[in-house]
Amino acid sequence: MGESHETQARTRYDVVVLGAGPTGANVADRARAAGLSVAVVERELVGGDCAYWACVPSKALLRPVIAIADARRVDGARQAVTGQVDADGVFARRNRSVHDWDDTRQTLFLKSIGADLYRGHGRLDGPRRISVTRDDGARRQILTARHAVAIATGSRPALPDIPGLAEVRPWTNRQATESSSVPTRLAVIGGGGVGIEMATLWQGLGSQVTLLVRRRLIPRMEPFAGALVAQGLREAGADVRIGAQVTALRRPDPEGPVTLTLDDGGELEADEVLCATGRTPVTDDIGLDTVGLTPGSWLDVDTTCLVQGVDGDWLYALGDVNHRALLTHQGKYQARTAGDAIGARAAGRPLDDTPWGDHATTADEHAVPQMFFSDPEAATVGLSAEQAERFGYRIKTVDLDFNVAQGAKLYADGYQGHARLVVDLDREVLLGATFVGPGVSELLHSATIAVAGEIPLKRLRHAIAPFPTISEIWLFLLAAYQRDQN
Amino acid sequence: MGESHETQARTRYDVVVLGAGPTGANVADRARAAGLSVAVVERELVGGDCAYWACVPSKALLRPVIAIADARRVDGARQAVTGQVDADGVFARRNRSVHDWDDTRQTLFLKSIGADLYRGHGRLDGPRRISVTRDDGARRQILTARHAVAIATGSRPALPDIPGLAEVRPWTNRQATESSSVPTRLAVIGGGGVGIEMATLWQGLGSQVTLLVRRRLIPRMEPFAGALVAQGLREAGADVRIGAQVTALRRPDPEGPVTLTLDDGGELEADEVLCATGRTPVTDDIGLDTVGLTPGSWLDVDTTCLVQGVDGDWLYALGDVNHRALLTHQGKYQARTAGDAIGARAAGRPLDDTPWGDHATTADEHAVPQMFFSDPEAATVGLSAEQAERFGYRIKTVDLDFNVAQGAKLYADGYQGHARLVVDLDREVLLGATFVGPGVSELLHSATIAVAGEIPLKRLRHAIAPFPTISEIWLFLLAAYQRDQN
Repeated sequence: MGESHETQARTRYDVVVLGAGPTGANVADRARAAGLSVAVVERELVGGDCAYWACVPSKALLRPVIAIADARRVDGARQAVTGQVDADGVFARRNRSVHDWDDTRQTLFLKSIGADLYRGHGRLDGPRRISVTRDDGARRQILTARHAVAIATGSRPALPDIPGLAEVRPWTNRQATESSSVPTRLAVIGGGGVGIEMATLWQGLGSQVTLLVRRRLIPRMEPFAGALVAQGLREAGADVRIGAQVTALRRPDPEGPVTLTLDDGGELEADEVLCATGRTPVTDDIGLDTVGLTPGSWLDVDTTCLVQGVDGDWLYALGDVNHRALLTHQGKYQARTAGDAIGARAAGRPLDDTPWGDHATTADEHAVPQMFFSDPEAATVGLSAEQAERFGYRIKTVDLDFNVAQGAKLYADGYQGHARLVVDLDREVLLGATFVGPGVSELLHSATIAVAGEIPLKRLRHAIAPFPTISEIWLFLLAAYQRDQN
Repeated sequence: MGESHETQARTRYDVVVLGAGPTGANVADRARAAGLSVAVVERELVGGDCAYWACVPSKALLRPVIAIADARRVDGARQAVTGQVDADGVFARRNRSVHDWDDTRQTLFLKSIGADLYRGHGRLDGPRRISVTRDDGARRQILTARHAVAIATGSRPALPDIPGLAEVRPWTNRQATESSSVPTRLAVIGGGGVGIEMATLWQGLGSQVTLLVRRRLIPRMEPFAGALVAQGLREAGADVRIGAQVTALRRPDPEGPVTLTLDDGGELEADEVLCATGRTPVTDDIGLDTVGLTPGSWLDVDTTCLVQGVDGDWLYALGDVNHRALLTHQGKYQARTAGDAIGARAAGRPLDDTPWGDHATTADEHAVPQMFFSDPEAATVGLSAEQAERFGYRIKTVDLDFNVAQGAKLYADGYQGHARLVVDLDREVLLGATFVGPGVSELLHSATIAVAGEIPLKRLRHAIAPFPTISEIWLFLLAAYQRDQN
């Protein structure tokens, strides 16, 4: 067998995946599990932003800050915390968690499942064809996909059009999770997840943080979530400015500070500026035009992540690029469900045969959990009251401060936090829940199971939380609902 | 109206509750909500052991120890913990949480719901009659109960019959949660919940703890739970001796140390001895003989907590005394369900009209959660594998170390913990779950909802845990189950 034939044989696959982040790796895994041959194309690190510049390093960095904040809230423990969070220790922890930005382990995972990795820039080259260009530009390979191409290229920071922004070389989530030095003054533009987590982190590591937010913090959560996080940031010493808009930036001395001009005419000086103003899909240079789609657009998909408007049911888009929920765990969920759908379709089996049945990605519709590791932590699943009303549900909200539960008061002296349930009055099931407070990050999944499982409240009352845990808030929430119904 | 008539009127109630712990207070609350007149009899503090000598003070004391242990497991945070847990701060925190053993607040709760409090020793005096003797013995009142008497007198430590035990004045849960001085050496007899929590606490406050356990730690949980807790205690510096039995104790000098003789002939010296070898019901002196029951026995009840073997459906036993589950939260659950049953029966309404429907206390049967605030924390709900097999279920267990979930590794460096699901193969629902590891206390309720809600695993797969949380263990557990089934 000649070499050219071998090369040819190796470039024909059942499935080609663009992007080796968690979503890409998981769809590859499911496709391999279905017995399909799989190629994965990645132009940066295998593992994606999540593993190197987002979820993993941010939580590795935040956890020490939160652990010390938690200890300081407890008499008897507080006195043991006589030092400060050690930034060098924190950075070392982060470096270990991202394996010093080395993706060997992740490539071994792909190898272990029998998927072939192609390093380079992948672009669609017409239906079922992907061209791969390596960084050195020297070699171009064409991969063909018998059954499916899965786009899982993710998203990158969207920089707003503010005069001077690019010139001051702002931090994005990349530098904010990658830095090993603490800026004396950090200005954060944007109050979404990245903004509040990085404000929490850098304030905790010793920066003087100014958080500039147009309207409100984490606006997709219930309004009280952003209010409590703003309060927490202020108590930690950050300057949180709501209603502030940056109109211009300049850094006259490339080694010197940045001056931000605000819409009220005031100015702010900072040593670094983090721009955390949303994400844009990485679809501008992946050959979408060769299959009749618009480069740079979010990709519209059905519940099995099939891209709409492309003939032949071969093109899938998973994770951030389909804009359903820009969250690693939802991308992985889509990868599992869509990966199984690809397997079923390749084998000519009905989708009902997959473990997902006809539910496919239903959780994307009504039970998406989201969690911010700020201080207090903010966690939500399903619909906010506002969203539920917009969708036409007849709802009742139940609101309680966590300190009605003794377990919360024992967790932290002077515990401050709030919980809300959104109940569908017609079916008496939960549509959503939001928990904000110290130590609620693992409590969220109880609500996610209740929402995804559509468990009647009548039955939820038999799920007893141990005394005295924070979880006992469930008892009081359900009792309050019941009381109001009588 | 003469005074004697008034007194007479005031001693006739719809419901008389014996014992004002959380169970008694809650059944009073539900009966009042049903419009019934209620008397509550309490001979010690309103609030019960839970509020003053068990759950509340123990968790108030343990939380600082756990918070510092958690911080020490995180690089960057560890360096900030340069001091020791401050015992005086811990004791002050405990004192605040028990309101310096003053029950004014709890009496105000009874007042707020319109229940009358009788301080004194309550005893049954034939059907539907309770005599109340005050401490000074001066006055004896007879209360009559039109509809129900609810026994909620709880339990007290059961001291084993070991020569010399009583003479050395051992600590029970009372002194162990009440003490404001740290014994240099503490011997703990018994490896149940009280034993392991108090060993964790006092070792954390600076005692040299020796834990003496006959068979294994927390034996009602999955075996790995006790093994991990033993390992944690040893890492904290405690001496954990499995298979050790105490055969005699002596304290020659009343101010001096205690010497424990062990069954292997060895001796152990300690400054205090905590006896944590189980509980006995407080039913020995409450007049059970006047209604044909055996003093000192656990009381056998139906699912609405009606005592069996007593005519007329008027005598209820709730909480520890019925031996269904010696846990505050289960006592409160029984109080809610039985309280509503008392209300329905008094009004001649069917039980289906209560919010509990015909389910009554079903969670007592199959979905009891239990949580130990040791280090690591140990949490379980429902059936262990051994219990499920004994009940004849066809089961599969799914076992994983928590560190397969990135969220666990980010929570604590070198995270050590283990999770098990027990699946009913016939219905494909969860029968039980056990989580042991740092930070799992609020994760338990997700499993409790899944078990109590009997959610099919097929549906549970749509409950997505945020990345990277400890909760993501669910993803791996369900995937492992699925893989094994294929």
